[in-house]
Amino acid sequence: MSSRPRIVVVGGGFGGLWATRALSGDGVDITLIDRRNHHLFQPLLYQVATAGLSSPDIAAPLRHILRNQRNVEVRLGEVTGIDMQSRTVTLADGEQLPYDCLLLASGATHAYFGHDEWSRDAPGLKTLDDALAIRRRLLVAFERAEACEDPDERAAWLSFAVVGGGPTGVELAGTLAEIARHTLKREFRNIDPSHARVRLIEAGPRVLASFPESLSAKAQRQLEKLGVEVVTGTAVSAIDARGFTLGEQFVPARTVLWAAGVAASPLGALLGVDRDRAGRVPVASDLSVPGHPEIFIAGDLASVVQDGKPVPGVAPAAKQMGAHVATAIRARLAGKPAAPFRYRDFGNLATIGRMAAVVDLHGFKLSGLLAWWFWLAAHVFFLIGFRNRIIVLINWAWAYWSYQRHARIILGQDNLERHPGERRDPS
Amino acid sequence: MSSRPRIVVVGGGFGGLWATRALSGDGVDITLIDRRNHHLFQPLLYQVATAGLSSPDIAAPLRHILRNQRNVEVRLGEVTGIDMQSRTVTLADGEQLPYDCLLLASGATHAYFGHDEWSRDAPGLKTLDDALAIRRRLLVAFERAEACEDPDERAAWLSFAVVGGGPTGVELAGTLAEIARHTLKREFRNIDPSHARVRLIEAGPRVLASFPESLSAKAQRQLEKLGVEVVTGTAVSAIDARGFTLGEQFVPARTVLWAAGVAASPLGALLGVDRDRAGRVPVASDLSVPGHPEIFIAGDLASVVQDGKPVPGVAPAAKQMGAHVATAIRARLAGKPAAPFRYRDFGNLATIGRMAAVVDLHGFKLSGLLAWWFWLAAHVFFLIGFRNRIIVLINWAWAYWSYQRHARIILGQDNLERHPGERRDPS
Repeated sequence: MSSRPRIVVVGGGFGGLWATRALSGDGVDITLIDRRNHHLFQPLLYQVATAGLSSPDIAAPLRHILRNQRNVEVRLGEVTGIDMQSRTVTLADGEQLPYDCLLLASGATHAYFGHDEWSRDAPGLKTLDDALAIRRRLLVAFERAEACEDPDERAAWLSFAVVGGGPTGVELAGTLAEIARHTLKREFRNIDPSHARVRLIEAGPRVLASFPESLSAKAQRQLEKLGVEVVTGTAVSAIDARGFTLGEQFVPARTVLWAAGVAASPLGALLGVDRDRAGRVPVASDLSVPGHPEIFIAGDLASVVQDGKPVPGVAPAAKQMGAHVATAIRARLAGKPAAPFRYRDFGNLATIGRMAAVVDLHGFKLSGLLAWWFWLAAHVFFLIGFRNRIIVLINWAWAYWSYQRHARIILGQDNLERHPGERRDPS
Repeated sequence: MSSRPRIVVVGGGFGGLWATRALSGDGVDITLIDRRNHHLFQPLLYQVATAGLSSPDIAAPLRHILRNQRNVEVRLGEVTGIDMQSRTVTLADGEQLPYDCLLLASGATHAYFGHDEWSRDAPGLKTLDDALAIRRRLLVAFERAEACEDPDERAAWLSFAVVGGGPTGVELAGTLAEIARHTLKREFRNIDPSHARVRLIEAGPRVLASFPESLSAKAQRQLEKLGVEVVTGTAVSAIDARGFTLGEQFVPARTVLWAAGVAASPLGALLGVDRDRAGRVPVASDLSVPGHPEIFIAGDLASVVQDGKPVPGVAPAAKQMGAHVATAIRARLAGKPAAPFRYRDFGNLATIGRMAAVVDLHGFKLSGLLAWWFWLAAHVFFLIGFRNRIIVLINWAWAYWSYQRHARIILGQDNLERHPGERRDPS
């Protein structure tokens, strides 16, 4: 369309979107490619999975976010090839997009550590479709328990496990306990939902390992107060439709959720360069791929080590990388050297459940109710789009006073009567 | 559990739910069976399909609605058999529920007039899953047009048709035109969404045939003002993945929606009694099945003729029938004769699009903006659940001022790259 430099951005998450927006005033033509039509506020995805929020509350169409940025074209599509020689990206529909600079920011997906067969019985949480599939499983489990005559089978339906004690696992387990103890109160006739057992399994010595030990201990106590059984120091060795095996012991549980492993997006493999164990691409100081100064990586796909420690896979890091890549592209187009990327760590937050969270701001530590308010304010503030913020606040205020979760609607009903192990993957 | 009379209610729509609630003070044990976990406010379903509202905005869990009514047990399940001899209902999971009185209120489904093969390429709108599948098709069509190089193919992706000029067809066509003309404005780079063609096809002589002729004419003018091409007096003779045939002429259209035919739920067939052409069960004056005074029918499954005219398949009629069945059950249990059902017709409303509707209150006719406000007030008022009403009002206020539709999130992404004709049915 012109002789302006062509920038191709793959992925409309925090990394890709922040880079794209930072280039809004530049004389470049940007194509932003994503497999999905929306930007997702991933930190609140567990709320969709646990029926507290609706999908549109935490997602906004990429086209809409970028409608006024005239140097961007948004393209719904899947990248299947990258030709670094001819500098071309190929999409699944066959279209080829030439680039002068390329940003890969396609994020991460679940990893089952060589046990991909577990994915059927222990779904993970990365997309809105994942969240709706998990929501369906949680709600159906209580329905099946209610309809069940056999006490052992009923107990198995009321047995829930979350594998992985990081922030997502802690959020899921805490909210699940809250649903069982409060939200569903008085709604069933044959079961008492508060008798549901919620286990959080962490192979390492403590939950929230990225936090100081004192906050891990506080988080565990808060989880236990909510009714979660926290199991640390033991790995899950098998998962099937009936339950899971912990060490040598089989534990019946019809609902197992996976929050343990993350692997970088497979797109990194298309570059043909070395990657680390989690599939991330080690980058140069300006976030470019070594030997390919025209290709950049941002977000969970990038392996960045700073002061001897890896930069964590969190939203603020992805945003900062995205913004830095915009600067680096600008420098490259001007023929100047790019400044090195430097991650500014503002602190670490994790929520546990109703009125419980932990906050670590470089030594200034908070836990409990105050930390929860801090977490809430930060998340509502960063939620994209003015409208969403208001609606989410109203939903939360409502949930807070009533213990209700408005999104308890099971979608994809055709799957209801099947056993979860027989279910086809959510679509 | 006791020797109290057992009432089984099949279906948690307007008919079944209103009957159940009307029996809240009676000494009976009610089991309410539904395949879905929620009551759905069907009159606003088209708003979910056209991305104006989220699923939880118009649905509430049946358990939650009935949590305080202690004589009800809610059962998620599918009825597969009715034994009128032993008075037992069988569910898909094998459970058998005995009844003293049975209410069948399982509603209606789409009908393709012997062309079931059209269902793949012309989905209908009855459930939330239908609505999300239609939403996906509409939004993906614009994405495919944007990515398409061939002008004919692009035009086919921008060609939409709604078959059937009743209230649902009019709502869908009007809203679709609004989306193309306003919502998506400025968001695409290669296409102008306002060039999309939206056709509303009605085989009969006029749209909204249940309204007075003057209002049909006004509705048609309002639709045309919104940009809809209204075609009356011509039937669709074929539909496939590429388009549809109108009389003898093939019209390319990648998105065809079905709003033409309704058939009663197949559960009516389990009774083994005579049914009318649409599968409805003709009932006695107290809404019981002739020869079976212990079985009642309410809502779209009932064929009721009053003053020589059929009672229409609308929400107020279903609610009134449900409430009447409660009275009839009470009379039967007391050994008294039941009063005959009498439908009170308060009037007829249909919305067309932004600020356009028609209202017929027994000769008092409204159209345009005033009718739209009347329609809005009535629908928000009748929406179940206090919380939903507030959220829906906020969503609408926002949509009104911004022309935006917040739920433009494509779910079920795996289907994106397939041709609609190859798509498996939405799950």
